[in-house]
Amino acid sequence: MSDNAFGRMFRVTTWGESHGPAIGCVIDGCPPRIPIDIRHIQGALDRRRPGTSRFVTQRREPDEVRILSGVFEDDSITARFGLPVSTGAPIALMIENVDQRSKDYGDIRDRYRPGHADFAYDRKYGVRDYRGGGRSSARETALRVAAGSIAEQALAVISPGIEIRACMIGMGRHEIDRTRFDWSVVDNNPFWAPDPVAAKEWEKILDDVRKAGSSLGATIEVEATGAPAGLGEPVYGKFDADLAAALMSINAVKGVEIGAGFEAARLTGEENADEIRMQNGEPSFQSNNAGGVLGGITTGQPIVARFAVKPTSSILTPRRTVSNAGEDVEISTRGRHDPCVGIRAVPVGRAMMACVILDHVLRHRGQCG
Amino acid sequence: MSDNAFGRMFRVTTWGESHGPAIGCVIDGCPPRIPIDIRHIQGALDRRRPGTSRFVTQRREPDEVRILSGVFEDDSITARFGLPVSTGAPIALMIENVDQRSKDYGDIRDRYRPGHADFAYDRKYGVRDYRGGGRSSARETALRVAAGSIAEQALAVISPGIEIRACMIGMGRHEIDRTRFDWSVVDNNPFWAPDPVAAKEWEKILDDVRKAGSSLGATIEVEATGAPAGLGEPVYGKFDADLAAALMSINAVKGVEIGAGFEAARLTGEENADEIRMQNGEPSFQSNNAGGVLGGITTGQPIVARFAVKPTSSILTPRRTVSNAGEDVEISTRGRHDPCVGIRAVPVGRAMMACVILDHVLRHRGQCG
Amino acid sequence: MSDNAFGRMFRVTTWGESHGPAIGCVIDGCPPRIPIDIRHIQGALDRRRPGTSRFVTQRREPDEVRILSGVFEDDSITARFGLPVSTGAPIALMIENVDQRSKDYGDIRDRYRPGHADFAYDRKYGVRDYRGGGRSSARETALRVAAGSIAEQALAVISPGIEIRACMIGMGRHEIDRTRFDWSVVDNNPFWAPDPVAAKEWEKILDDVRKAGSSLGATIEVEATGAPAGLGEPVYGKFDADLAAALMSINAVKGVEIGAGFEAARLTGEENADEIRMQNGEPSFQSNNAGGVLGGITTGQPIVARFAVKPTSSILTPRRTVSNAGEDVEISTRGRHDPCVGIRAVPVGRAMMACVILDHVLRHRGQCG
Amino acid sequence: MSDNAFGRMFRVTTWGESHGPAIGCVIDGCPPRIPIDIRHIQGALDRRRPGTSRFVTQRREPDEVRILSGVFEDDSITARFGLPVSTGAPIALMIENVDQRSKDYGDIRDRYRPGHADFAYDRKYGVRDYRGGGRSSARETALRVAAGSIAEQALAVISPGIEIRACMIGMGRHEIDRTRFDWSVVDNNPFWAPDPVAAKEWEKILDDVRKAGSSLGATIEVEATGAPAGLGEPVYGKFDADLAAALMSINAVKGVEIGAGFEAARLTGEENADEIRMQNGEPSFQSNNAGGVLGGITTGQPIVARFAVKPTSSILTPRRTVSNAGEDVEISTRGRHDPCVGIRAVPVGRAMMACVILDHVLRHRGQCG
Repeated sequence: MSDNAFGRMFRVTTWGESHGPAIGCVIDGCPPRIPIDIRHIQGALDRRRPGTSRFVTQRREPDEVRILSGVFEDDSITARFGLPVSTGAPIALMIENVDQRSKDYGDIRDRYRPGHADFAYDRKYGVRDYRGGGRSSARETALRVAAGSIAEQALAVISPGIEIRACMIGMGRHEIDRTRFDWSVVDNNPFWAPDPVAAKEWEKILDDVRKAGSSLGATIEVEATGAPAGLGEPVYGKFDADLAAALMSINAVKGVEIGAGFEAARLTGEENADEIRMQNGEPSFQSNNAGGVLGGITTGQPIVARFAVKPTSSILTPRRTVSNAGEDVEISTRGRHDPCVGIRAVPVGRAMMACVILDHVLRHRGQCG
Repeated sequence: MSDNAFGRMFRVTTWGESHGPAIGCVIDGCPPRIPIDIRHIQGALDRRRPGTSRFVTQRREPDEVRILSGVFEDDSITARFGLPVSTGAPIALMIENVDQRSKDYGDIRDRYRPGHADFAYDRKYGVRDYRGGGRSSARETALRVAAGSIAEQALAVISPGIEIRACMIGMGRHEIDRTRFDWSVVDNNPFWAPDPVAAKEWEKILDDVRKAGSSLGATIEVEATGAPAGLGEPVYGKFDADLAAALMSINAVKGVEIGAGFEAARLTGEENADEIRMQNGEPSFQSNNAGGVLGGITTGQPIVARFAVKPTSSILTPRRTVSNAGEDVEISTRGRHDPCVGIRAVPVGRAMMACVILDHVLRHRGQCG
Repeated sequence: MSDNAFGRMFRVTTWGESHGPAIGCVIDGCPPRIPIDIRHIQGALDRRRPGTSRFVTQRREPDEVRILSGVFEDDSITARFGLPVSTGAPIALMIENVDQRSKDYGDIRDRYRPGHADFAYDRKYGVRDYRGGGRSSARETALRVAAGSIAEQALAVISPGIEIRACMIGMGRHEIDRTRFDWSVVDNNPFWAPDPVAAKEWEKILDDVRKAGSSLGATIEVEATGAPAGLGEPVYGKFDADLAAALMSINAVKGVEIGAGFEAARLTGEENADEIRMQNGEPSFQSNNAGGVLGGITTGQPIVARFAVKPTSSILTPRRTVSNAGEDVEISTRGRHDPCVGIRAVPVGRAMMACVILDHVLRHRGQCG
Repeated sequence: MSDNAFGRMFRVTTWGESHGPAIGCVIDGCPPRIPIDIRHIQGALDRRRPGTSRFVTQRREPDEVRILSGVFEDDSITARFGLPVSTGAPIALMIENVDQRSKDYGDIRDRYRPGHADFAYDRKYGVRDYRGGGRSSARETALRVAAGSIAEQALAVISPGIEIRACMIGMGRHEIDRTRFDWSVVDNNPFWAPDPVAAKEWEKILDDVRKAGSSLGATIEVEATGAPAGLGEPVYGKFDADLAAALMSINAVKGVEIGAGFEAARLTGEENADEIRMQNGEPSFQSNNAGGVLGGITTGQPIVARFAVKPTSSILTPRRTVSNAGEDVEISTRGRHDPCVGIRAVPVGRAMMACVILDHVLRHRGQCG
C-alpha cells in the first residue's frame, strides 16, 4: 500500500518528483457547477513559489498550472460567471518542472543527508530518485496549494462566509508579540508575520542566518472563521484528528496543536473549559481554548491550529553522515538554499485547512443532510 | 460518512456508548496464526480501568473483555502455544457496561457542559445520547487499549523486538526532571511517571486538586524501540501523520509532536539534523531530534511522540453555560470525578502506537515485500 | 489487508463464525434521527432464517437480534415515533448462535469439501475454523439482512418512495413463466417465486431432490422502484459496479447481471438502447434494457439485477476429495442439508440492494447536495 | 464522494475527458524496483487503440503514453535490466488527445442519446461535458489498459508464472464453437476470437452490420493461469466480488460471471462441485466450475470470468429521445462509428484482471506474509 492521497470525499492524489518532467494532482469529488478560476489557483501558487524573496530558495520555478480535466465551459453556467465550472469529474492539474539543475545533486546520490528522507527512502524502497529529493521534495506542496485553492472556491459556493488565513508566529527562538497581532500586515512582509515589528527584526536575523549558510525553524498558525458547527466525525474521523494528519504530512512539520494546544495540558479545568452565554439569540463561547473543536466536532467558533516546521537540513556547514557504501563521510549543501522553509509552509497550511474543511462539509452533508 | 474506524490493514472499528448495554470493537486484518492471550488484553485493560486509585474516576467497571470471533483453538497450532490463534477473520471484542448509574446525569440532558462535546453533537446530529457523554465518553478508549494489546501480540510474532512504552511527563504546570528519567519506575506510581520524585510530589498536588473538585491536564510521552526502518508512506500516509491522527483522536488531546516537536522550530539547521556515523557496521544516528521518522518514514531509531491532554471539564465549580432551550444557566458536575484524565490516557497512547506500527508493518510488507 | 466491510458512507462491518458464540455487525454512517424498529429487522431475519420450511436447512436458529449501540430513546423524537432513533453513532447488532451441534462436523476438519471454501482458506491462512464452515458459512448473510433492514428504514425517511423486492425466477433448470409474473404471490410460497404455477411444480421437484440428498441452484431477481436518478459515480464507483460486487460477495453467487444483462450482448444497437419520450412533462424510457443504470448512474427507472446461486455442495452422495494429509479420500455431508440455498438468498439480495442504494444516496448527497 | 479510482493497494486513479487536452492516470502503490518497459504499455495500448481495423471506430488516436513520475534510471538496477525501475512513488501516465473533432458533436449537446450516459449525468451533476461523451467515453479505458500493463510487469517480478489472456467468445447471437477453442489464433483475427472459423464468419456479419450503421454486442472471456491460491478476502473483499466490480465498471458491460456462472444455477450439487484428487503430490481439481475461486479465495486453478458488452447505442438509424428542453426529438449518430465496441473491450478485460490480481497479491502479502 502507498498513500499519496488525502481526504475522503474531496480526495486529492498527488504525483511527481522534484526533478522529473512535471508534478501534478488529481482532485476527485469536487462538487459540480463550481466556477473555477485558474487565476485563483495561480495566485495561491505564486504565494508559495520559490524565488520570491531573498529568504526563500532561489530555484526559479514559474509554477504555471494547467487544468487538464474536470472543468467545462458550459454555455449557460459559464455565461453567468465568465468562468468554466467543475463537472463533478476528476480535476487534473499539472505543473511542469522547468529549473531542475540536476547536476547540482551529485553528492546526495551516494550520501545520506542528515535530517533528510534519503536514508529512510533507501531502507524502505531499495531505490531512490535522489535528484532534488525526488518525491520527498517540498516541491510536492505546490499541489496542496493548488488543491487548497479549488477547495476554497468550492467552499465559497457551498458554505459561504468561511475565511481561512495563515501566518508565521515564530521564527527560530523569536516569537511575535500577540498584543500587536494584525492580520492586515501579513501580506506586507516576506514572513507572512502578523506583527510588523517582529517582521522587521526577523529580516535582519534571517539575513545573518542566510549569509552564514544556516537555517531556522518556524511556527505557523492557521485560522478558519465562519466554518459551520457540526463538522467532524467521532471517533476516528474527528475534525482535529484529520487536520493533525493533514498538517503533520507537510514536509518538515514536527508538531501540531489545536486551540490552547500543549498549553491546555498546563491549565486547570476551570481555566480551560470555554464557558457559554446566549448572545443575540445564539450560544456564544466566552473564550476559545478549544480552538473551535469539541469532541472532534466543530462548534462554529474559529478553528485555530498551529504547527512547527523544523529548520531545513540543507545547510552550508559540513555535517557528518554515512555513504551508501557504509563509510563515514561529510556532506554540505551546495548551491541554492532555503534559510527558513517555514515561510513557504504558510500558504501550505492554509491550503490543508481548506481541504480538510471542504472534505468534512461534504462528509457531513452526506450523513446528516 | 462517519468514521468510527482507524487503520488501513489492521483496521479497528469501535462501537458503543458510555451507558448502553456494552461497548465493543471489530478488528479486521489481524494476521493469521497469532497466538492470542486474553490475559494480555485484560492486563492492558486493567491498566486503563477506572477506579484503580483515588486519582481516577470512581466508576466501578470490571471491564471484562470477551472475544466473540476470529480466534480458534486449532489442534496443532494451539497445542504448541497453549493459546487459541487468530484465523485471519475479524476479531470481535465486547465489554459489557456494568456500573452505569444513569440517574446521575439529569442535568446534562438539557445543559451543554463547557469543554464537552454536548453542544457539538447536538449541532451535528440533532439528537444526543446524553447518558455519561454517550459516544463521546472516554469509555471508548478501553477498546483502543484492547486493540492495542492484540497489535502488540501480533507484532511479537511478525516483527519481534519492538517495545512500546508510555509515561506521563507533565501534570498541569509540573514537569518531570529528565535527568531522573527511569522507565523502570513507571509502573510503580499512580501517574505512570518516569520520575519517582515528581510522582511523589504529584500525589500531594493532585490530592488537593481532587478535594477542590478541580482538574489538571497532562503531557504523555510514548516511545517505541526496535521498530524497523521503512515504515510509513509518502506523502499522505506518513508514519507520523498517521500517528498524529491516532493520538489526536484520543479524547481530550489538543496537541501532538514527534521527536523534538515544537522545540524543533526553535533550533538551527545545525542543531536539529541528526548526524549519522557507522557503528558496528550499521548507520547510527548520533541524536534523535527526528523522533525516529524522516520524510514520514521510520529510520529504525526509537519512535518518540508526545501529546497534550486537557484537564477534564467535569469539575465541581459551577460553570456558566446555556441550555437546549437557549437560556443562560450554570452547571457543575456531581458525583464521580476524574481529577486528571491524562493518567488513563497513558495506556491509550501506548495502544495507539502499537496499532499504527502494526498497520504500517502490514502496509509496508504488502507494497515492498 | 482484510475486508469484512462494505459500503463507503453506509458502511457495514460483519464478524462471527457459524459455530462461535455469536455473530454481529457494526453499521457506521447511518444518518441520525431515523426511527429504528427492531421488529422490522427481526421480520427481515425471519424471512431468511433456517428451519422455516422443509426446503431449507433444519438448523434451528431463532436469530434473535439485539441492538447494542447507536440508537437512543430521545424524549422528544421518540415520543413522536414511539421508537428509538439512530444517533449517528455506530449501530452494533448481535445475534447469538444457539444451535451449533459442532459434533456433526468431524469429517470436515481433515477433508476439504468439494465446492466449499475449506481448501482455499487453508491455503490462505494456514489455519481454519472448520466448525460449520466458520467464517465462510452462509450464516454471515443474516447480518446483511439485518443491515438491509436498517438501510430500508433510513431510506424511508431520507428518500421516500423506494420499494425493493426480490424473488426466485429459476430453480435448477426450471424457470418461471414471465407472463405469469406477479409480485403479490412471492410471499405465499416457500420459494419466493413470482409465478404460482412454477412454485407449485418446484415443490415436487425439490422434494425429490431433497430426498435424494442432492441440491439445486437458483436464479434470483432484485428490483428497486422509486430510486432517484443520479445515484452512482463514474468511473469506478458506478452504481452497477458496486451492486455487482455486493451481490457477487453473497455466498455461492457465480454471476450477476443488470437489466438485459448477458442477453444485451446478443442484441443489436437498435434493439438494446431504451428510447425516451416525454410523458407528463418528464422524460420517460420506453423500455428498460438498461436495468435503470446508464454510464453507471441511475436514471430513475426501476433498477433490475439478477444473480446466479450455485447448488450447495453439501450433498449426501459421497464425493472424491483429498485430506489435509494429502490422501485421496471421499466425503459426504451428514445431518442437516439445504437442498436449495438459493431460497435463502432472496432476502439477502434485497438487503444488498437496499444497502447499495442508501450508500449511494448518501454519497450523492455529499458531493452534489 | 466520487470514485474515479480502483484497487486498494495497487490503486489506479484515472482522469480526463474524451475531448479535453489529455487523459491520464496515477498508479499508487506499485511495488518498488520493478523494471518498467514503456514499450509494454504502448503495446497494450495499441491493441485497444481505435482505428486499427474497419471494425472499430475510425477515430485516429496515436495514444502515445508518457510516464511523468514514479520511475527512475537508477544506476545499478537499471544497468541490470536496461530499463528504468519503479521507485514506489506514484506512477503518472498521460496520453494527449489528438483527434478530437469536437464539431461532430453538435446534436448531443441538447439531446440525450438513448443508451448513453447523457441523461444520467445531467440528472446527477446538472452540467455535462457533452463533447464525445466527456468523462463517460470509452476513451477512459485506455488508462485501464496502461495500468494493466504495469500490473503485468509487476506480477512478472513478484508472482512470476501468471499468464492473463482474453478473447471474444460471442458477437451478437453468434458464439464460438468451444471444440475449436485455440488461444493461439486470438491475435490473428480482428475480433480476438479463439475460434478461427467463427472469426471468419464474423467478418462478413460485422461488415453488414457496419454498412447498415447498426451495432452488435459481445461476450468476452478472461482467463488467468498460474495465479497463486489464497488471493481474496472474505467476506466483502472476495476476489470474485472485486473482479465483478472491476469488469462491471467497464463501459457498456451489463453482466459478469465466474466459472460456470449463470449455468451453475442450473446444475445439481453433484454436477457443480469440482472434485479433488492428489496429483504429483498436490491437490488437483478435476473440473473448474468454480472458475478458480471458492469462498471468494483463489484455489490456484485458472481464474475464469466472462462479461457481456452491450451493442453501442451510437447507430445511424434515427432513435426517439427527448431534448434538454423537454421536447420529443430524434437523434442519430453521424460520423465515426464502432459497430462492435466489444472488440476493444478484450484488452480492457485482460487489464482489469491483471490489476485485480496484483492488488490481491499485495493485500495477501500484507496480511498473511
